[in-house]
Amino acid sequence: MKRNTPVAVVVKRILAGDIQAAARLLRDLDDGVPGASAVLKKLYARSGRGHVVGITGPPGSGKSTLADRLVEAARKEGRSVGVVAVDPSSHISGGAVLGDRIRMQRHAVDRKVFIRSLAARGSLGGLSRSVFDTVTVMDAMGKELILLETAGVGQDGVKVAGAAHTVLVVLAPGMGDDIQALKAGVLEIGDIYVVNKCGREDCAELVRGLRLALDAGKREDGWERQVLKTDALSGRGINELMDAIERHRQVLCGSRAWAHRSQAMAKTAFLELLEAGIRELISEKLGREKTWLKLLDDLAGRRTDPYSAARRMLRDII
Amino acid sequence: MKRNTPVAVVVKRILAGDIQAAARLLRDLDDGVPGASAVLKKLYARSGRGHVVGITGPPGSGKSTLADRLVEAARKEGRSVGVVAVDPSSHISGGAVLGDRIRMQRHAVDRKVFIRSLAARGSLGGLSRSVFDTVTVMDAMGKELILLETAGVGQDGVKVAGAAHTVLVVLAPGMGDDIQALKAGVLEIGDIYVVNKCGREDCAELVRGLRLALDAGKREDGWERQVLKTDALSGRGINELMDAIERHRQVLCGSRAWAHRSQAMAKTAFLELLEAGIRELISEKLGREKTWLKLLDDLAGRRTDPYSAARRMLRDII
Repeated sequence: MKRNTPVAVVVKRILAGDIQAAARLLRDLDDGVPGASAVLKKLYARSGRGHVVGITGPPGSGKSTLADRLVEAARKEGRSVGVVAVDPSSHISGGAVLGDRIRMQRHAVDRKVFIRSLAARGSLGGLSRSVFDTVTVMDAMGKELILLETAGVGQDGVKVAGAAHTVLVVLAPGMGDDIQALKAGVLEIGDIYVVNKCGREDCAELVRGLRLALDAGKREDGWERQVLKTDALSGRGINELMDAIERHRQVLCGSRAWAHRSQAMAKTAFLELLEAGIRELISEKLGREKTWLKLLDDLAGRRTDPYSAARRMLRDII
Repeated sequence: MKRNTPVAVVVKRILAGDIQAAARLLRDLDDGVPGASAVLKKLYARSGRGHVVGITGPPGSGKSTLADRLVEAARKEGRSVGVVAVDPSSHISGGAVLGDRIRMQRHAVDRKVFIRSLAARGSLGGLSRSVFDTVTVMDAMGKELILLETAGVGQDGVKVAGAAHTVLVVLAPGMGDDIQALKAGVLEIGDIYVVNKCGREDCAELVRGLRLALDAGKREDGWERQVLKTDALSGRGINELMDAIERHRQVLCGSRAWAHRSQAMAKTAFLELLEAGIRELISEKLGREKTWLKLLDDLAGRRTDPYSAARRMLRDII
């Protein structure tokens, strides 16, 4: 597709599920090509049907393998799938973890599967603008199931809850006391808890612990949160997990919950985009304007303090 | 201390190491009490000598126990210590993980140890304003060693590198493939790698793997990054770790590296404070002004899109 393809044509192609057109648009968005965001806005107005399933959990719990199995299961049912994998890659080297991705690539030849790996944003936690762009494009392409896999726990993990209809929290036994450590941050965000790598002897204990913890913190949205056992490597428990995901979708759709979640997702995207815009502005200012170069210098020399400097720049921006 | 104690008196008390005055100031800063930030600015000008040691690593690697042992070792050498522990607590429930903290409390009766637990910031990753405030206050109090313990890996872990002179990355054997997953994000930020919970048979493998990985990515700051084995629970390897931390400080001080790191820390604090200010402004606007309430409503109804909404608000702010 040429750079100067009219907006309406690109929109039409992507709505028809054209992978090349979608990949091109996402690249153009990253490069800030003029016109790309006009396409995205039109796509946004046409999106909102895809079921966005966030997958989060600590490193080593097997999220990627699980996502790979979910793609496989969804394809068996004839459903169209999108995968957005946010890499725990370095903001310094830009390196990515390839092993898991390569495994996923067996789906890459399937025209009904669209996979994108995105680097986690550099300077701050949270999800990058590209994540929202990609989900919007996949949704517009007609992907019925969109898996949004994010690395890590804590802030990043919590963030995904604002960007998905259904949140899977993936844990694995034998990770020591970390379940304890995870509890506080993670027990609120999951709709479905997956204890992966089951088969180890300590799996039952983790499942029991999770169920007790979840019972203690019941939610009032009509969904009984579940703890499921899987072994993604062998494929055990995947069908049950797919069923649970679909049940959650139906419960959401059967009430105002689907609309509520979609609204929350739009708000999250709005706030993230707003912050990205502000951050861009700041780094432009800091990199360009003499006064700010001097300020960084003064900071370094302790001639001013970060508090006064931040207040000054705030006043300057607004 | 009364609310209306003059700034100069509070500053003097904190510079003398007064724990009550310091704790009160930090509380006042959190509550936005007028005058508190004037004290902080004065303290900032008098700080910059404390050695800030960041401790990061995945949950379950034993960071808190290790910090506890480092406090013990530093106290044996007669050094004054501050500990800032950023809890992986929920932004929803505000709950904290108490077990580790309680262990640390044995130092609470020691007047030369100042420990503060801070909740991780809610809406976004990164370190909260309180973290910088607390480090500044501890530094001004004359704490020679300031341990900054942050939960988690990924964004949060990377962030600590911008806020510390020396970064310890704590890992533990037996956490499955997560070392693999951590690699990309974590291999650049550490000055010292600690393989904790050593004694397990798979400890040697992890140490070897780390050394190979670190060799591949040598840095050019005159510091040969190290991999040390510890068992914080029994105290094994702690003295060697203390020595390595002190050696790193000396290497930093012997070159321009100390100044460079301090400058980077000031810049990190500045950017974080700036973003916190902007975030405050946004949430005020969104919560108060009618136009923005309508916008959130339009977003929910898909009458506008997050991209246009974010651009509009950006224009409105600036």
